Amino acid sequence: MEDGWLNTVNWAQDGLVPVVAQEVGGGRVLTVAWMNREALRKTAESGEVHYWSRSRRKLWRKGEESGYAQKVRSIRLDCDEDVLLLEVEQVGGIACHTGRHSCFFRKLEDAQWVAVDPVLKDPADIYKRGT
Amino acid sequence: MEDGWLNTVNWAQDGLVPVVAQEVGGGRVLTVAWMNREALRKTAESGEVHYWSRSRRKLWRKGEESGYAQKVRSIRLDCDEDVLLLEVEQVGGIACHTGRHSCFFRKLEDAQWVAVDPVLKDPADIYKRGT
Repeated sequence: MEDGWLNTVNWAQDGLVPVVAQEVGGGRVLTVAWMNREALRKTAESGEVHYWSRSRRKLWRKGEESGYAQKVRSIRLDCDEDVLLLEVEQVGGIACHTGRHSCFFRKLEDAQWVAVDPVLKDPADIYKRGT
Repeated sequence: MEDGWLNTVNWAQDGLVPVVAQEVGGGRVLTVAWMNREALRKTAESGEVHYWSRSRRKLWRKGEESGYAQKVRSIRLDCDEDVLLLEVEQVGGIACHTGRHSCFFRKLEDAQWVAVDPVLKDPADIYKRGT
């Protein structure tokens, strides 16, 4: 795949752009994470969503630990060329490390953030390793 | 309104967080922009979406020039408390300064970014001032 399209993206000084992952079908916004050039290239080439972890300072494939991968259906770029929007199929229906469908499970109600979406699976079960 | 909920948000060092605006109904992602504390407070209090413009370094009410305001229906916060998701009603059906419905009008197709959504109104007509 030619690389010119990667140059169109207006990468920030730290080499990253924010990425919105939206679920195919219902259109639920699942996650917002970050990509660098390599993450975007790998995502486009493999069809599996890769992000850049700012806290761990490494590339990661979504679901590499949890199994809850995101399969990419389309990749869009915004007018300022500095935000990406992915349409994804969420494997297992869980995008959030808290075991919820979406990371946006808290809603502002009467000046309080209220968790309005259920935990579908205990994170301890999602991330446990063989002993 | 009490301010504690504003402290829950994990503002970045520059005082900002990214904000996804998603349209009520169809669920189209319209824009991703930025808010500081004041923008979020004003948005919650007024019901009209306010952002922080990084290029102009000022607070702005979405639609203050174009007329294409965003009315907020709900405000969500993600698991890391550093991204907001707004459900909005897009006045006039145009969110993008290019005159399109959504800012995400370019789609990656065969290693090219292709504008796949139509211009609904000429920006010259949207932003023209009385002479």
